[in-house]
Amino acid sequence: MKIGIINGPNLNLLGLREPTIYGQEGFETILKALEARYPTHTFVYFQSNIEGELINAVQDMALRQGCAGILLNAGGYTHTSVALHDAIKAVSVPVLEIHLSQVAAREEFRHTSLMGVACRGTISGFGKDSYRLGVEAVVSSL
Amino acid sequence: MKIGIINGPNLNLLGLREPTIYGQEGFETILKALEARYPTHTFVYFQSNIEGELINAVQDMALRQGCAGILLNAGGYTHTSVALHDAIKAVSVPVLEIHLSQVAAREEFRHTSLMGVACRGTISGFGKDSYRLGVEAVVSSL
Amino acid sequence: MKIGIINGPNLNLLGLREPTIYGQEGFETILKALEARYPTHTFVYFQSNIEGELINAVQDMALRQGCAGILLNAGGYTHTSVALHDAIKAVSVPVLEIHLSQVAAREEFRHTSLMGVACRGTISGFGKDSYRLGVEAVVSSL
Amino acid sequence: MKIGIINGPNLNLLGLREPTIYGQEGFETILKALEARYPTHTFVYFQSNIEGELINAVQDMALRQGCAGILLNAGGYTHTSVALHDAIKAVSVPVLEIHLSQVAAREEFRHTSLMGVACRGTISGFGKDSYRLGVEAVVSSL
Amino acid sequence: MKIGIINGPNLNLLGLREPTIYGQEGFETILKALEARYPTHTFVYFQSNIEGELINAVQDMALRQGCAGILLNAGGYTHTSVALHDAIKAVSVPVLEIHLSQVAAREEFRHTSLMGVACRGTISGFGKDSYRLGVEAVVSSL
Amino acid sequence: MKIGIINGPNLNLLGLREPTIYGQEGFETILKALEARYPTHTFVYFQSNIEGELINAVQDMALRQGCAGILLNAGGYTHTSVALHDAIKAVSVPVLEIHLSQVAAREEFRHTSLMGVACRGTISGFGKDSYRLGVEAVVSSL
Amino acid sequence: MKIGIINGPNLNLLGLREPTIYGQEGFETILKALEARYPTHTFVYFQSNIEGELINAVQDMALRQGCAGILLNAGGYTHTSVALHDAIKAVSVPVLEIHLSQVAAREEFRHTSLMGVACRGTISGFGKDSYRLGVEAVVSSL
Amino acid sequence: MKIGIINGPNLNLLGLREPTIYGQEGFETILKALEARYPTHTFVYFQSNIEGELINAVQDMALRQGCAGILLNAGGYTHTSVALHDAIKAVSVPVLEIHLSQVAAREEFRHTSLMGVACRGTISGFGKDSYRLGVEAVVSSL
Amino acid sequence: MKIGIINGPNLNLLGLREPTIYGQEGFETILKALEARYPTHTFVYFQSNIEGELINAVQDMALRQGCAGILLNAGGYTHTSVALHDAIKAVSVPVLEIHLSQVAAREEFRHTSLMGVACRGTISGFGKDSYRLGVEAVVSSL
Amino acid sequence: MKIGIINGPNLNLLGLREPTIYGQEGFETILKALEARYPTHTFVYFQSNIEGELINAVQDMALRQGCAGILLNAGGYTHTSVALHDAIKAVSVPVLEIHLSQVAAREEFRHTSLMGVACRGTISGFGKDSYRLGVEAVVSSL
Amino acid sequence: MKIGIINGPNLNLLGLREPTIYGQEGFETILKALEARYPTHTFVYFQSNIEGELINAVQDMALRQGCAGILLNAGGYTHTSVALHDAIKAVSVPVLEIHLSQVAAREEFRHTSLMGVACRGTISGFGKDSYRLGVEAVVSSL
Amino acid sequence: MKIGIINGPNLNLLGLREPTIYGQEGFETILKALEARYPTHTFVYFQSNIEGELINAVQDMALRQGCAGILLNAGGYTHTSVALHDAIKAVSVPVLEIHLSQVAAREEFRHTSLMGVACRGTISGFGKDSYRLGVEAVVSSL
Repeated sequence: MKIGIINGPNLNLLGLREPTIYGQEGFETILKALEARYPTHTFVYFQSNIEGELINAVQDMALRQGCAGILLNAGGYTHTSVALHDAIKAVSVPVLEIHLSQVAAREEFRHTSLMGVACRGTISGFGKDSYRLGVEAVVSSL
Repeated sequence: MKIGIINGPNLNLLGLREPTIYGQEGFETILKALEARYPTHTFVYFQSNIEGELINAVQDMALRQGCAGILLNAGGYTHTSVALHDAIKAVSVPVLEIHLSQVAAREEFRHTSLMGVACRGTISGFGKDSYRLGVEAVVSSL
Repeated sequence: MKIGIINGPNLNLLGLREPTIYGQEGFETILKALEARYPTHTFVYFQSNIEGELINAVQDMALRQGCAGILLNAGGYTHTSVALHDAIKAVSVPVLEIHLSQVAAREEFRHTSLMGVACRGTISGFGKDSYRLGVEAVVSSL
Repeated sequence: MKIGIINGPNLNLLGLREPTIYGQEGFETILKALEARYPTHTFVYFQSNIEGELINAVQDMALRQGCAGILLNAGGYTHTSVALHDAIKAVSVPVLEIHLSQVAAREEFRHTSLMGVACRGTISGFGKDSYRLGVEAVVSSL
Repeated sequence: MKIGIINGPNLNLLGLREPTIYGQEGFETILKALEARYPTHTFVYFQSNIEGELINAVQDMALRQGCAGILLNAGGYTHTSVALHDAIKAVSVPVLEIHLSQVAAREEFRHTSLMGVACRGTISGFGKDSYRLGVEAVVSSL
Repeated sequence: MKIGIINGPNLNLLGLREPTIYGQEGFETILKALEARYPTHTFVYFQSNIEGELINAVQDMALRQGCAGILLNAGGYTHTSVALHDAIKAVSVPVLEIHLSQVAAREEFRHTSLMGVACRGTISGFGKDSYRLGVEAVVSSL
Repeated sequence: MKIGIINGPNLNLLGLREPTIYGQEGFETILKALEARYPTHTFVYFQSNIEGELINAVQDMALRQGCAGILLNAGGYTHTSVALHDAIKAVSVPVLEIHLSQVAAREEFRHTSLMGVACRGTISGFGKDSYRLGVEAVVSSL
Repeated sequence: MKIGIINGPNLNLLGLREPTIYGQEGFETILKALEARYPTHTFVYFQSNIEGELINAVQDMALRQGCAGILLNAGGYTHTSVALHDAIKAVSVPVLEIHLSQVAAREEFRHTSLMGVACRGTISGFGKDSYRLGVEAVVSSL
Repeated sequence: MKIGIINGPNLNLLGLREPTIYGQEGFETILKALEARYPTHTFVYFQSNIEGELINAVQDMALRQGCAGILLNAGGYTHTSVALHDAIKAVSVPVLEIHLSQVAAREEFRHTSLMGVACRGTISGFGKDSYRLGVEAVVSSL
Repeated sequence: MKIGIINGPNLNLLGLREPTIYGQEGFETILKALEARYPTHTFVYFQSNIEGELINAVQDMALRQGCAGILLNAGGYTHTSVALHDAIKAVSVPVLEIHLSQVAAREEFRHTSLMGVACRGTISGFGKDSYRLGVEAVVSSL
Repeated sequence: MKIGIINGPNLNLLGLREPTIYGQEGFETILKALEARYPTHTFVYFQSNIEGELINAVQDMALRQGCAGILLNAGGYTHTSVALHDAIKAVSVPVLEIHLSQVAAREEFRHTSLMGVACRGTISGFGKDSYRLGVEAVVSSL
Repeated sequence: MKIGIINGPNLNLLGLREPTIYGQEGFETILKALEARYPTHTFVYFQSNIEGELINAVQDMALRQGCAGILLNAGGYTHTSVALHDAIKAVSVPVLEIHLSQVAAREEFRHTSLMGVACRGTISGFGKDSYRLGVEAVVSSL
C-alpha cells in the first residue's frame, strides 16, 4: 500500500527550528523510522513552502500515484487556505490532518482550521509520533 | 480583440471533480466552444494552483499581452487573497469575477469575496455559461 | 418564452438618479432594447418600491403568468428582505439576482445579500448590460 | 370572543409551497377546522405580503375590532421588522408569535426574532397545530 | 399514553421563587391539574438541578419507559448545554422545549437556545399553561 | 416655501400609544401648531405604515411637489431600511431625521440608524418639539 | 435664564480647521450671535481639550451656576468617555448632545455615542445652527 | 501500566445512537478489543453523563489510581466545560482529547474545544479506532 | 450568625494544585482560621465538582439552613453556568462572588462572569484572604 | 504604614449623586471612619476628574510618597483607560481595584475592566465598605 | 528646522519602568543624543500624562511654534483617543506615530491604533532608536 | 554586513502601479540609492509574487546567506500569511516589517498584520524612504 505524506511551509526546517517545541530530528529521520516500522508499505513524501504546490501534491498523490491515504501537515496554511481545503474535498482518497504540536494550545489565529472540515480525521500534539499514529490510522481503516 | 481567462486552484480538475456540481466537461471543451462562438476574438488561457502565478498572469495579460479584458475564476483564493486583489487593482484592464457555482449558496467562509471589491463585475452560478456571459460582458463593454 | 423582470425600490428613478453611476437611460429604454434584441421572447415588467408587492410579483410571474425565468433587481431590499428570499425559494422558476452597479465595491451594509442564497445565479456591475446578460443566461439554460 | 389571525409573507402559498415542510392544506382549511372546533369564538383573518399592511392589521384588530388576542405568523418579517415589533408593543391586546416550522432548527438568519421580544408567548414547530395551540393559549388566558 | 415531563435547575423552587414572574403554584399542583385534565394519559415526572441527571432522564424516558413524548423545561441549561442537546438528538421520541416565561424578552444571554435546534417544537411564555399546551401538542401529534 | 413631513409606522397612533413617552397629542394637533407658527410656509404631510409608500413619498415630495426640505420620522424603518436610505440619497432635497424620543437611550437594536448616514442632520429626543426644531433648521438653511 | 455651552477637544480651532466642513467662523462669533438673538438669557461658555475639565464644567454649570440646560459638543470624547457619560447622568439638569457635522455620515468609529444614551436629546449636522437649535430646545422645554 | 478511559455524556448510548455515525458496537466491545490487543496494560474505564463526575474521575485516575495517561472523550462538555478544562490542568498526568467523529466537520458550536487547550494531544474522526490510537500515543510517550 | 461557604470544581485540590498560584494550604486550614477569628459565627461548608449540587447547596443554605450570607467560589462554573446564576437570583440571601486568583488577569474565557451579575459583590485576587474579606463583608452588612 | 486612596471622575459628587445607589455620605466621612478604625496607618487621599492626574497620583503615591498599597476607584476610566492600566503596571506597589456598586450588574459597557488585568485584586459592590475591605486586604498582605 | 517631540502617559517613567523592555535611559538622555546628532535642528519637547494636554501640544507645536514635523508617542492613548486623532487631522504639519516597543506583539487591546489612521507614518519596535529614525524621516521628507 | 530586502506581490510593478501613491521609481532605482548611501554594506534583493518563495527567501537569507537583518515588505500577504509569519519566527535574524504607504489609513482588511507580531519592528508610510529607514534601523542595532 502506498501512503502519501505532505509537509507544508517551514517544515523543511524541522530539527533546526525551535527544537524544544518541534524536536531535534529532521523529517528524513522520521520518514526512515516509518519505513522501517512499516516495511510492507511505500511512502511518498513531498514538502513545499508554496501553497499551490501542496495542492498539486494532493491531486497528484490521490489521482495519479494511487495513494491509499494522505497525511497532510499543512503548517501555516492550515488556518487560511480555502484552496487546499477544496483540493482535499475534490479527491476521494482520505486525507488526515497532522500536527506536531498541540495547535489548540497556541495563538488564537491558529484555532481555526480549514483542513479539519475537509479531512477524515485529525491527530495533533504528539510530536513526530503524530505521523506514526496517522499511518496507523490509514492502515487500520483499510 | 484578445480576452484573457484565468482559472485558479483545483479548476484543472474540472470534469473530474464533483461533476454533479461542476459539470462533466473539462475546461478545454468550454474553451473550444468559446473560440467557436467568438471566432473574431483571441483567447489567452492560464490555469494554476499557485496564488502568485495567478498574480503573474493578471499582470502579464494586462500589461504585456494587451488583453482587453480578463475573466478570473480565482477558486478558493477568491475569499482569502489580498495579494490577488491588489494585482487586479494595479492594472487598468477590466477584470471580471467568474464562478461556476452560486457561491452565495455555499459555506459561510465562501461568502466574503476579496475579488468582488476589485473587479468590474461578477457573474456566478451559471456553470460553464458563466464564462460565456463573461465574454459577452467584455465584448459589449468595448 | 416569457421572461419576467422585477425592479425594486428607487429603480423607477433610473435615468434621473445619480446618472454617473446608474446611467442616463430610464428602464423603458432598456426594456425596449431587450424586446428588440429578443423578438421571440415576451417580457413581463414590474416595478415597485413596496417590498410586499415585489413578493406578489415573484409569486404571480412564477405561478400564474408562467414565466420561464425572472430577473430580480431587489435594490435596497437585497440586503434585508428575508420575506423576498422566502418567495424566491417558494417558487420553482429560476430567479436571477441582477444589479446595475458592482455591489461588492460599495458600502459595508450592501455586502450581505439575502437574494444570492436563494437565486440561481448573480450578475452585477455591468450597468444596463446586466439585464441583457441575465436574459442570455435564462435563454441558454432552457 | 373575537380572535385575530394574521399571516405574513408567502403564507398565501400554504399548501402549494414545499408541502413536505409546510403541509398540504391551504390556510382556509386550517381556519375552517378552528371555527368548527371553537364555535363560540369568532375568527378574524388577514394575510398580506406587505409589511405595513400587517402593521395596519395589528392596529386594526386590536384597536377597532376588539379582538381579545392575536395570533401572528410574521413569516420572513419575524427576523427583520422593528416596525411590526413596535406595532405589537403599541397595543395592549396580547399578541402571540406563531410558526409552522421549528424556526430554531433552520438557517442562522432565522434565529433572531424581533417578534418574540414583544409577544406574550411563542409557539413554533407544530405545523398547522401551532395555530390551534395558539387559540388554546388565548382562550385559557381569559 | 405515557408522557414525560422533565424540569431543570431551580424549577423545584416554583411557587417560592419570584411568584410575580413564575406564578404561585408549585409544580405538584400543575402536575395534578394535568392528570385531572388528561385522565387517559400517564405522566412521568422528573426534576433535577444536575445537568447530567437531566440527560439520564431524557434517555430513560425515551428508551426504557416508552414515553410517547417529552416536555423539557431545561431552565438555565437551555442556553449552555451541548450535552443535553445531544441527548435529545440521540433519541427518536419527540422532545418539546417548554418555558414558563417568554425567554425572548429576558436577558441577552437567554436568547440563544441549544434546545430549540434539537426539539420538535417550542412553547414559551404562557406560565403553567405552557405545560398544558405541550401536552396538547404531544397528544394531537399522535 | 413648501416643507414636507413624513411619518412612518405606528406614528398614526400618536396620542393613543404610550402617552407618557410619546405625549398625548395626535399629530394633527402638532401639525396645526406648526402651521400657526409658520404661516408663510406650506406643509405637506404624509403618514404610512408601509415602507415602500414612504419611499414613494420621499420621491414625490422632492421631485414633484418641490418641497424645500423634508422632515422624516421613519419610526421602526429607521434601523432596517436600506431602500429608504437609498431614496434619501437619490434626491437632492435635504432630508432631516426626526425622532420624538431619544432613540440612543432605548433598546440596542435601535442604536443603528440607516437614515442618519443619508440625512442632512438629526434631531431626536424633544417630543413634538423635535418637529418644530426641524422646521427651524430647514428654514434657516435657506 | 442661564444656559451653559461646553465645547470639547479641538473645537478651539473652529474657523481654522477644515473650514469647508466646520465653517469659517470661530465660536466667539457664534456665541455673540446667540447672545444677540436671545437677549433675555445668559450664556456660560467653556471650552477645553481635557476630558476631566469637561466633567468639571458639567458639574459646575449644573450644580453651582444654576444653568437651566447645557449644550454639550464633546467632540472626540463623544465616542469614548464613560466618565463624561456618568457626569451627565449624575446631574439633573438636561444636557443636550450637539454636533456641527452629521456624525452618522463619518467614520465607523464615530457611530457609537456614549453621550446620546445620557442626554435629553441630540442635534447634529446643522453647522453653527446646531447650537441655535439647541438653545431653542432648552428654552421651549421650560 | 494503567491507562484511564473516560467517556462523557451520551456515550453510554454507543451502538444505539445514530449507528451510521458512531458505529454499531457498544463501548464494552471496544474496551475488550483494547484489552486483548494490549494485554500488558490495565484499563480503567468510567462513563458518566454528569460533568462533575467526569471531573472527579480525572482527579481520581490521576491522583489516586496512578494512571500513566487518560483518554478523555468529553462529548458535549468538550465545548462548554471550563471546570473540566481546569481539572485537566490541575493534574500532571497527560490527558488526551478523543472523539469518534470528526468534530471539525460538524455544527459551528462544536468548533470550539475547551479540552484541546489543556490536553497533551487530540485524536478525532477515526471512530472506535480513535481510542486505539490514543492508547498507542500514551504507550509510545513513555 | 450562620455563614455559608460553597466551593466549586477542583477546589478540593487546594494545596495540591499549582501551589504557586493557589497557595499551599488545603481549604480545611483556611476554614479553621476563619472559625478561630470569628468565634461568634457558625460556618457551613460545602464543596462539589458537580454544578447541580452547587445549586442544591445555594438553595439549601439560603432556604433551609438560614444562612445570613453565602460566599461562593464557583470555580470554572463562574463563566458558564446560567443555572447557578438563576439559583443565586432565586434566593434573597446575599451571595458573594469569591476568587482566590485575580481572574481578570487570566485567560480570555475567564473574563466573563455569570456570577457577578447576580451576586451582591465580588472579591478576587487575595488568595485565601479573599474568603476572610468575604466574611468581613457579610458581617458588616448586617 | 501609608495607604493611598485614589478616586476618579464624579466621585467628588459622592453623597450628592444618586444617594439610593451610592449612599448619602461624602467621601470625607468615609475617610474619617477609616482613619478612626486604622489609627496606626496614614491615609493619602486624592480625587480628580482628569484621567492624567490619576496617572500622576498613581506614580506619585507609589514612587515618591512610599505608599504600601493603593486603593483605586477609577470610576468611568475603569473601562476605557489603557494609560491608567499602564501606570499601574509601571509601579511595583500593589494597586487594588475598588468599586462602590456591583459593576458587573450594570450596563454592558461597564463589563470590561482595563484596571482588573493590572491590579492585585478587585473588591466591588459593598458600598463604602468596599474601601474598608480594601484597607483590610492591603494591611493583611504585609 | 524645528522638530516637535511629544511623549504621552507614563513615558516620564522611562529608565525607571520595566528597563528590560523600555531601556535604562531616561528621555533626557535620548533627547540630548538627538540634539548632538542633529545640531542644525531645534527640538521642542513635551511630556504629559493628560490626554488633553497632548492635544494642546499638537495644536501648539503645529500652529504657533512652527514645527516642521512632530514625533508623537501617545502611549496608552494610542488605542483609545479619538480626540487626539482629531487634533492630528486638524493640523497640516506631518505627525509621526512613534513607539519604543513593537506594539503589534503585545496585548490584544494594543493592536488597534487610532493614531495610525491620522499620522503620516509609523515607526515602532526600535527602542530609543525609534525616535532617531523618526527624526530621519522628518528631515528627509523636507 | 549583508542586509536582505524581500519584496512581496505586485511590488514588481513599482513605478508603474498607481504612481501617485507608490511613487514613480522602480525598485532598482531605490536599491541603487541604498547601495550608494551604504557602500560598506552588501544588499541581497529578492522579489516574488508567490507566497512560498518569500518563505524560501526568508529562510535562505537568514540561514544560508548570513544576512544580519532582513527588510520585508510582504505586500498583500502581510494580512493573511500565517506561513510567512512562521518563517520569520523560525529564524533568529531580525526581520523588519516595511511598507511604502501608511497601511493603517487604508482599507479595513489591511488593518491586521500577521507580520507585525513576528517582526522586530515596523516602518510604514514613508514611501521609498521606508526602506532607507529600515537599513538605518538594522545598522544601528548592531
